[in-house]
Amino acid sequence: MGGGLFDHIFAGRTIAPVFSDAAHVQGMLDFEAALAQAEAKAGVIPQSAVKAIVAACDASLYDLAAIGAAARDAGNTFIPLQAALAARVATKDKAAAGYVHWGATSQDAIDTGLVLQLRTAFAVLDDDLATYGRALARLARKYRATPMAGRTWMQQALPVTFGLKAATWLDAALRHRVRLREIRPRVLALQFGGAAGTLASLGSKGPAVARNLGRALRLPVPDAPWHGARDRVVEAGLFAAALTGSLGKMARDVALMAQTEMGEVAEPAGEGRGGSSAMPQKRNPVSCAAILANAGRTPGLAQTLLAAMPQENERGLGGWHAEWAVVPELFRLAGGALEHAVTLAEGMEVFPDRMAKNLAASGGQVMAESVKMALARKIGQGAAHAAIRRASGDAVTRGTDLRTALLADAEIAKALTAREIDRALAPENYLGSALKFIDGVLARRGRK
Amino acid sequence: MGGGLFDHIFAGRTIAPVFSDAAHVQGMLDFEAALAQAEAKAGVIPQSAVKAIVAACDASLYDLAAIGAAARDAGNTFIPLQAALAARVATKDKAAAGYVHWGATSQDAIDTGLVLQLRTAFAVLDDDLATYGRALARLARKYRATPMAGRTWMQQALPVTFGLKAATWLDAALRHRVRLREIRPRVLALQFGGAAGTLASLGSKGPAVARNLGRALRLPVPDAPWHGARDRVVEAGLFAAALTGSLGKMARDVALMAQTEMGEVAEPAGEGRGGSSAMPQKRNPVSCAAILANAGRTPGLAQTLLAAMPQENERGLGGWHAEWAVVPELFRLAGGALEHAVTLAEGMEVFPDRMAKNLAASGGQVMAESVKMALARKIGQGAAHAAIRRASGDAVTRGTDLRTALLADAEIAKALTAREIDRALAPENYLGSALKFIDGVLARRGRK
Amino acid sequence: MGGGLFDHIFAGRTIAPVFSDAAHVQGMLDFEAALAQAEAKAGVIPQSAVKAIVAACDASLYDLAAIGAAARDAGNTFIPLQAALAARVATKDKAAAGYVHWGATSQDAIDTGLVLQLRTAFAVLDDDLATYGRALARLARKYRATPMAGRTWMQQALPVTFGLKAATWLDAALRHRVRLREIRPRVLALQFGGAAGTLASLGSKGPAVARNLGRALRLPVPDAPWHGARDRVVEAGLFAAALTGSLGKMARDVALMAQTEMGEVAEPAGEGRGGSSAMPQKRNPVSCAAILANAGRTPGLAQTLLAAMPQENERGLGGWHAEWAVVPELFRLAGGALEHAVTLAEGMEVFPDRMAKNLAASGGQVMAESVKMALARKIGQGAAHAAIRRASGDAVTRGTDLRTALLADAEIAKALTAREIDRALAPENYLGSALKFIDGVLARRGRK
Amino acid sequence: MGGGLFDHIFAGRTIAPVFSDAAHVQGMLDFEAALAQAEAKAGVIPQSAVKAIVAACDASLYDLAAIGAAARDAGNTFIPLQAALAARVATKDKAAAGYVHWGATSQDAIDTGLVLQLRTAFAVLDDDLATYGRALARLARKYRATPMAGRTWMQQALPVTFGLKAATWLDAALRHRVRLREIRPRVLALQFGGAAGTLASLGSKGPAVARNLGRALRLPVPDAPWHGARDRVVEAGLFAAALTGSLGKMARDVALMAQTEMGEVAEPAGEGRGGSSAMPQKRNPVSCAAILANAGRTPGLAQTLLAAMPQENERGLGGWHAEWAVVPELFRLAGGALEHAVTLAEGMEVFPDRMAKNLAASGGQVMAESVKMALARKIGQGAAHAAIRRASGDAVTRGTDLRTALLADAEIAKALTAREIDRALAPENYLGSALKFIDGVLARRGRK
Repeated sequence: MGGGLFDHIFAGRTIAPVFSDAAHVQGMLDFEAALAQAEAKAGVIPQSAVKAIVAACDASLYDLAAIGAAARDAGNTFIPLQAALAARVATKDKAAAGYVHWGATSQDAIDTGLVLQLRTAFAVLDDDLATYGRALARLARKYRATPMAGRTWMQQALPVTFGLKAATWLDAALRHRVRLREIRPRVLALQFGGAAGTLASLGSKGPAVARNLGRALRLPVPDAPWHGARDRVVEAGLFAAALTGSLGKMARDVALMAQTEMGEVAEPAGEGRGGSSAMPQKRNPVSCAAILANAGRTPGLAQTLLAAMPQENERGLGGWHAEWAVVPELFRLAGGALEHAVTLAEGMEVFPDRMAKNLAASGGQVMAESVKMALARKIGQGAAHAAIRRASGDAVTRGTDLRTALLADAEIAKALTAREIDRALAPENYLGSALKFIDGVLARRGRK
Repeated sequence: MGGGLFDHIFAGRTIAPVFSDAAHVQGMLDFEAALAQAEAKAGVIPQSAVKAIVAACDASLYDLAAIGAAARDAGNTFIPLQAALAARVATKDKAAAGYVHWGATSQDAIDTGLVLQLRTAFAVLDDDLATYGRALARLARKYRATPMAGRTWMQQALPVTFGLKAATWLDAALRHRVRLREIRPRVLALQFGGAAGTLASLGSKGPAVARNLGRALRLPVPDAPWHGARDRVVEAGLFAAALTGSLGKMARDVALMAQTEMGEVAEPAGEGRGGSSAMPQKRNPVSCAAILANAGRTPGLAQTLLAAMPQENERGLGGWHAEWAVVPELFRLAGGALEHAVTLAEGMEVFPDRMAKNLAASGGQVMAESVKMALARKIGQGAAHAAIRRASGDAVTRGTDLRTALLADAEIAKALTAREIDRALAPENYLGSALKFIDGVLARRGRK
Repeated sequence: MGGGLFDHIFAGRTIAPVFSDAAHVQGMLDFEAALAQAEAKAGVIPQSAVKAIVAACDASLYDLAAIGAAARDAGNTFIPLQAALAARVATKDKAAAGYVHWGATSQDAIDTGLVLQLRTAFAVLDDDLATYGRALARLARKYRATPMAGRTWMQQALPVTFGLKAATWLDAALRHRVRLREIRPRVLALQFGGAAGTLASLGSKGPAVARNLGRALRLPVPDAPWHGARDRVVEAGLFAAALTGSLGKMARDVALMAQTEMGEVAEPAGEGRGGSSAMPQKRNPVSCAAILANAGRTPGLAQTLLAAMPQENERGLGGWHAEWAVVPELFRLAGGALEHAVTLAEGMEVFPDRMAKNLAASGGQVMAESVKMALARKIGQGAAHAAIRRASGDAVTRGTDLRTALLADAEIAKALTAREIDRALAPENYLGSALKFIDGVLARRGRK
Repeated sequence: MGGGLFDHIFAGRTIAPVFSDAAHVQGMLDFEAALAQAEAKAGVIPQSAVKAIVAACDASLYDLAAIGAAARDAGNTFIPLQAALAARVATKDKAAAGYVHWGATSQDAIDTGLVLQLRTAFAVLDDDLATYGRALARLARKYRATPMAGRTWMQQALPVTFGLKAATWLDAALRHRVRLREIRPRVLALQFGGAAGTLASLGSKGPAVARNLGRALRLPVPDAPWHGARDRVVEAGLFAAALTGSLGKMARDVALMAQTEMGEVAEPAGEGRGGSSAMPQKRNPVSCAAILANAGRTPGLAQTLLAAMPQENERGLGGWHAEWAVVPELFRLAGGALEHAVTLAEGMEVFPDRMAKNLAASGGQVMAESVKMALARKIGQGAAHAAIRRASGDAVTRGTDLRTALLADAEIAKALTAREIDRALAPENYLGSALKFIDGVLARRGRK
């Protein structure tokens, strides 16, 4: 129906097909095909019924629009699909048609279908996270010791290196890969409970069928169905949202550094990339915009999943339904943010000279803590803080650089020689453990 | 790209086309056509350029997929559309192509295009609200004095009437129509500021062009552009979300009354409506499910708009972009909830006998306050509350109805005759101002 | 219990007491006092009971901690308050105690009490909005023609004036005052329906008591109770959230302009304001931080109110309860953001020289559109856009300013004289309608 | 400032003190005490300074209100605390005062302080989850085979057992305990980076101090500071929100079963528990209300944390600040929901006779799938579904029970004997794998 144009900008190109209408239908059909096989193997339905059912479990055989149209009254997409599937099977094997979806419920097919989609989505994200991590590691190594202004509260604070920035982005990305590994076995679980979660329709053969089904779909069989217990699906969605948030942090940093007045980095250039309809000189950070937009949209979607958790009884009304479009959207947007982040990490232009220039722009004020620490070793931290704050203010008032003000301050000049002051004012002398931090993160990545 | 199947269930069928890809493109083209006319009229561009531009401003002429594909790098959908528009104009009138989008910025076209879509959406919602109100008014009148159990904290409390329930739903619907009327002139405002909101590109002719443009599009011209001030768009979205919330309240009530054990109402029946893939007897409240799902999804989308408000400088990065898909989604879902609500209000089956049966089911406990008030007039409220609570407990403990327990209670029996007790136990004697409330709401509707 | 320390930073100092525990209790007691008077006047309770009840309706007489402790089991704060109130009345007039809260329900007192708090809160916000508007108007006038770089997508775009920025903030603030005026009559409505919204407990006297009660509390009496229809409360909360969002936009702008590298504005200085625990030179934009934090928190709270709308039956379970702490929090945070915004608007330091310097920093690139428009009048927009884009790129590649590149470009130099180029490169010549926009907004403010 | 009264109802009594103002301050002071020791050990500050600093690191020594008042201008709570701490140390040992907070930044103390609070909070939640799990296991065992109506879409579907319901709640609780174990090592990490995350102030001794500090606080030292990378804090908050959501599911189920018309369970009774101010017979499910309220509030708070992730540069503006009150609130509410859930799980009254009565109320319709499966084994699933749907409709139309309609249906009567029909209509014969599922979950709990 709508909104496809915007998806081009915001959705991941690799992940979007995983959540297409056809893929949704195929997920449910994969469940149905495996179900027929699992039930035949357990002696629940005749083996003869399997072939025709399996052959019909191909999404390309169905009219998706007709299924959609019928879904409004049916209340879900599976019921019309089941009807269409049975009708198609019947054209080949009338008897087999009677064994379609035997003993299962819509939600078994819909949830398991989603799980199969999520399995692919997880693989896509994990791959892209690996690529992203590789690119960030390159940046971290290449600019390991490239000084730039560290900024806190959006004010220059102390020197850092651009490599440290990249390593910090990488650090978060590595944690997300670990999270993905942890949630995978919980999220990727078979849903199979029948109408009320008891598999009553299968008599005593429920566990055997479930085992066969899990094996066929390569999904673990949980201790019990989870029709009304949505924490598995929710944690998948929360993962996607938190990942997007971390990518948003990287995009925020890039957008700030790329401001015209900063000019420290630029998005990769390219024909048709980031032009303006009005201003010829513009090079808009379009990937940052897309990532930040997605980081703005995923929290509300994650909240929707959380708010939908208190579902009624064995299978709920409204809450589950709210998940259907929201989970795919979360992954489309997370995947889109990640693709844009890979573009940035791989193609970002970095301008160390502008970093150096900005670092120098405050006339040494950015080194105030450095001088304070040197001074504190002589006169104590409290006195040093006050003295440097005074000198810093003097520099501002008189329009001088900090060095001049420091030398002009009697208390400070008494405690520190000009040489000590100069040493304290050099950014490269005040990087502390930055390089060690970078190396630690890079080493952890190497160990994965 | 994806998710269309679910739209069939949740999106409004009348409102969805208002937010289709084609409608989005047409909105921007309507802006461009009107712009050319307005600028020609103000002498900014030659009159001769208008015809070719206007002729090309028809969405059906463009390859939406190509525009989408180019949008990813361009950063928005307008830039590739502008290129395609200019190319098409050029095939007819090379000179005219140079005057396409003269002096405007992407956001002028995108925002004004959205405003034009919202104008149609408002009309759709207002119509559907009128229909919904009419249907609710019918229910309120028909079941004005049909007693049923009022329930608070999901416990039977006192008798109400089904008409009062419908009147209360109507009451909220009427308020939403007033809100819509109030926000309309703020939301439906021209966006026209050029690249940085100064209309610098038009020299001194900005105001004249804006006036012409507003007149052509029948949109008021605000005092200043609002590229970075998003409260107008946000309030449109919040309206949609709050409306959906009120519809969700109605759906929640219906779903509770429709529980098998209550059976007081049922969703309209119909071939293919609300069946189950597993259980032949099921009649699932599918419209309630859709409305509640939408009422669960719109809050997160509204939150996204609110959170995106602090946009950077003259035109922001990420926040504005987050709005693009979210505003249409809000209206698709609000429109969908409203359509389902109309279905419910018009077709709901009502079972007064089940209402009466449920009202009687507590053995008179639901009339406890009624007896308390009768008793309080004799012995004071505190003592009466305690006495009735005691009798109520006795009835539960001994498995009798409340009447028996009341008559068996010495303190109560001393204060109230059996006749007084019977009068107090009759639901129809304890409806208070319910009918007056209904009449008040119906009268207000009549005055609109 | 907790979190009070953070309130010091984020909550409004004027509005916080409106939502204190004592004020919450007083709101309910004001309802009770007025109820007794209204019922006596209508002949529902004896006139003699009024005095003792009214005298006891003073929050300072009650042990709030004890009420809180009992509230956990009672399920709301009113039930223990009612018990305490009745007990206190009984010490003065045993008979009167029996008439406390006659015929009403907890929610009548809780909702009406909230409405009374909101009435005060609205007045506080409206006052502060007026002050904020005055301060912004001063800025808009003072810096009406002070050029600075307009920025879009966080890139320099075109010149604007600082006055236009202020006028745009003001524009939104004026709209919020109108909104406040519109929602006031809907939000500030009496809640009075008794246990199930029928006023059954008052027999036929419900309407008379409601009228008296509304008059006593100066609140309009709606057509019907709204226990389960929460759109009134929701719209109050949404107003607070949207207002905070607009303030967040202003804070975002200030924070960006105040970046060390920009230096265009600074937050008002002051002893103990914005210092750093580590860096002596830091002057952190603390009010921006608080406003942005609040603009980040209010959307989630607004969403909570929206998501809680589908409440069950006559009075719901959980949804209503979710509102209790959330509505006050929304107003505390909106009020806090507004106070900080007043601080900013009144005390902001503005550095026009830095604005000029930043405007010049791009070597004329920020004037690219201006030259493009001049050129377009000669060679058409498409050709002009391409030519200027080329020259702009040349300037970057060769490290020259735009003027040099323009003069060196054969196509451009042929179409424009050096003088025309210079005229097009002067920011003051390219402000378009900026001053008109400012004047329009200021005039609208004047008309209020 | 405000809102404390509501905390009594919604916040956890055990967890609330973990996030009190005093505990917040103590967390920061614990960091400072450990920092002094760690730095002395590494030779960064003199050993002699430690004693006075450590002695002053006791929250009860400070005027929290004064710290709060100063925090508004300072921008955070740590800066005034540091001043007060240094002042207090100075009264004992002037030299030592100069070494307070040596080389660290506010955020080091604030974040690590929060981590220490979270460590305690995790322990509280884990304990309460264990208690909750024990109580649910008891319910699952006791009512293992107690039949009741399973309900889907809020309609009776098939029989389940109450033990299966409890086991499903338990199943989710067990998963949350696993999640808690997984996130613990990521969330409980030292924050220590100094002003810009480089520990520059400590020269080369940063890693040694960090190691000592981590050891002293029993916190792992991460590869790099995470001032701007908030995924650790976010995942703590998301855990709390998802846990609350699962508890909300349980409360929703209980509230539905406890409806007057259902009467299958009741909240534990108690003096002052769940009474109504108006209706003597009411026994309101107050714990359900509190849990559902919290499950309605935590999603918005989780969303706030996610939306705040894109923080600026080395330490951000506004996003971090938004976390301060929100993380504690999330844990207060999660802890409160869990306490109420323990109350429910331990004290819930269960009425198997009402369950049986409700199961019988549909006149056998709830067994329709059971008969369908029996019939399907004879005539195929499609034909069986149609036949039973027809008989089910006949029963409704004619007002008979399903058995009568089945026997009256020629097609069905031909395929199934009365005895087969009766066997299919007995709920205890149609529990499928319910008991196996219960046993599986209980066994998993046993293995932990």
